[in-house]
Amino acid sequence: MQEINITKPTMLLNKQVCRNNIRRMAQKAAKHNLKFKPHMKTHQSGEIGQWLREYGVEAVTVSSVGMARFFAGYGWKDITIAFPCNLREINHIKSLAADISLTLLVNKLSTAQVLQEQLNYPVNTYIELDTGSVRTGLLPSLVNEIHELISFFNDSDMLQWKGFYSHPGHSYEARSEDDIQSVQQSVTQQIISLRNELQSTPEDFEVCIGDTPTCSKGTDFSGIDAISPGNFVFHDLMQVQIGSCEVNDIAVAVNCPVVERYADSGQLAIYGGAIHFSKESLTRDGTTHYGLVAARGSKGWTIADNDSYLARISQEHGIVQCSPNVFEQYSSGDIITILPVHSCLTAHLLGGYRLSESGRKVNHL
Amino acid sequence: MQEINITKPTMLLNKQVCRNNIRRMAQKAAKHNLKFKPHMKTHQSGEIGQWLREYGVEAVTVSSVGMARFFAGYGWKDITIAFPCNLREINHIKSLAADISLTLLVNKLSTAQVLQEQLNYPVNTYIELDTGSVRTGLLPSLVNEIHELISFFNDSDMLQWKGFYSHPGHSYEARSEDDIQSVQQSVTQQIISLRNELQSTPEDFEVCIGDTPTCSKGTDFSGIDAISPGNFVFHDLMQVQIGSCEVNDIAVAVNCPVVERYADSGQLAIYGGAIHFSKESLTRDGTTHYGLVAARGSKGWTIADNDSYLARISQEHGIVQCSPNVFEQYSSGDIITILPVHSCLTAHLLGGYRLSESGRKVNHL
Repeated sequence: MQEINITKPTMLLNKQVCRNNIRRMAQKAAKHNLKFKPHMKTHQSGEIGQWLREYGVEAVTVSSVGMARFFAGYGWKDITIAFPCNLREINHIKSLAADISLTLLVNKLSTAQVLQEQLNYPVNTYIELDTGSVRTGLLPSLVNEIHELISFFNDSDMLQWKGFYSHPGHSYEARSEDDIQSVQQSVTQQIISLRNELQSTPEDFEVCIGDTPTCSKGTDFSGIDAISPGNFVFHDLMQVQIGSCEVNDIAVAVNCPVVERYADSGQLAIYGGAIHFSKESLTRDGTTHYGLVAARGSKGWTIADNDSYLARISQEHGIVQCSPNVFEQYSSGDIITILPVHSCLTAHLLGGYRLSESGRKVNHL
Repeated sequence: MQEINITKPTMLLNKQVCRNNIRRMAQKAAKHNLKFKPHMKTHQSGEIGQWLREYGVEAVTVSSVGMARFFAGYGWKDITIAFPCNLREINHIKSLAADISLTLLVNKLSTAQVLQEQLNYPVNTYIELDTGSVRTGLLPSLVNEIHELISFFNDSDMLQWKGFYSHPGHSYEARSEDDIQSVQQSVTQQIISLRNELQSTPEDFEVCIGDTPTCSKGTDFSGIDAISPGNFVFHDLMQVQIGSCEVNDIAVAVNCPVVERYADSGQLAIYGGAIHFSKESLTRDGTTHYGLVAARGSKGWTIADNDSYLARISQEHGIVQCSPNVFEQYSSGDIITILPVHSCLTAHLLGGYRLSESGRKVNHL
């Protein structure tokens, strides 16, 4: 077991697995001739951003104005805020526009008008497309609205239209590579048909797509110019369930002190609860869990076995249901390692990392 | 709508509702002749702690060593850490023991032995009882183990045995006051029968029980000397569902910017997601939600209507499904107010409050 003077729930980061994840995605982007603009919301770390730079990344994606300010502070000069423009943060947006090449999602004429009036420095704009996630953005079929926006941007000296952005979050419902491919196929068909509607040449604008499943396992990027996946740097059990990665591609796990041991039920009580893992859960064979007990594999972490999982969590308590074999390995005071269901939320909650090899701290926003 | 220069998801605190919740619980404790040792994990705020002091509170309960250190810094001298003693934090425990009257949950002889060896200043101990939550603690029927621990404590100069602690978390499965009463009845029966087994007089030790439902609505505190509820300071939609409170007893709500508006579906996209609300959900008539749209009532917040709720959340995005009437009230750029499902987790994530009347900031750990 990995133990770096752990006193409370602590996220471990396997640097080699993380860098392999980055390398693979950078190579995939290069192979398909795609710009690689990774989403930083998963790791929220200046240092991991530096690893991305080493693989040639120059432009990044974030999900909030605060995160854009954080990464601008780390010297990033080309940042997309992949969240519908929140005009209540106009003051920070104006400051960022003065300092960096900032790209905003602008999906409404009224928002575009306010930006045009208030900005002192130009920004780039993407129109967000709802390609099936039913979250935010315009349906690609709303060609009139899209034309109207583009026409406004073309007349504007503050809003330089760059193209379209979409997060096909419905890929999270996939449960196999085939499912992922068919989500991607539906997305690319919508993009191609929109390109036809707009009678554009490929040079007129760019299309950026950002979700880990299709970027990891998709093979057809027709009509797409850039990708902005985020979760792939760490992966997690949800991505394993979707079919985006293998367990040993998961780059983070949580070390938790074992505080009680219940032989009758085969349960361990751990210091590690909802304020560490989040309440994101998965259901496997009818059983809900909040993480799986990990063991060290030859490359990264593996699953200890199929019967050892974080079964219940309250604010700070976790109850781990163990197989007899796993149960025997832990005493009170030991450290148990749990693979997270959703690494983005768990990393956000734990707010920092320790490298699994050296124990050195890696900071988080 | 309440709008205090809100730019991002922000927790509002209605001071009057919060102080009423505190007053009612302090009066209830006094009426039943119970010591009132409120749990601070819900609010994690030095200032709200001060309001508790004004209602005569002298001893408090926390769920982590870090939280004990935080409140010791606010001058609290009698703190119970209501979490099985985590020996990996022994250094902080030793420092706290030097400064304050510290009470630990010690449920195992091996833990007691380590503490006896390592402490330089005495601490108090509770034995934690599992009265039905099946989380941590000893079953009250394990009289031999309990005797063994008490006997160790009696011989120890560092561990002063104080009594028993229990969190009957199974009260969260209640859906009416009757359900809550029957949980409490089962708990008090277990306590009384343990008291009989131990042939104790009421003065020999104290029993402290800490959950908001039974402390709010229970009427029979036989065998119980102290209460340590936490959630009651704020309450939330989960407590409403359980039957612990009314909607207008909820003292916190989250202000979120509306960023998009979808007339066809009656949905609003808001800046407010899983890193603000947590993924705690409730299911009502088969529909899962992460919060309900609030309106201002005469005393506190009310529910806007039964058809307006936070239907989906991802990391920073929230999708609010609205009734036609509620939908018409909001434009992009407005602020919408959402009542949280689980105020403890939401407060932890948002990390601070604005008073709903004045907008003044109230700090969180």
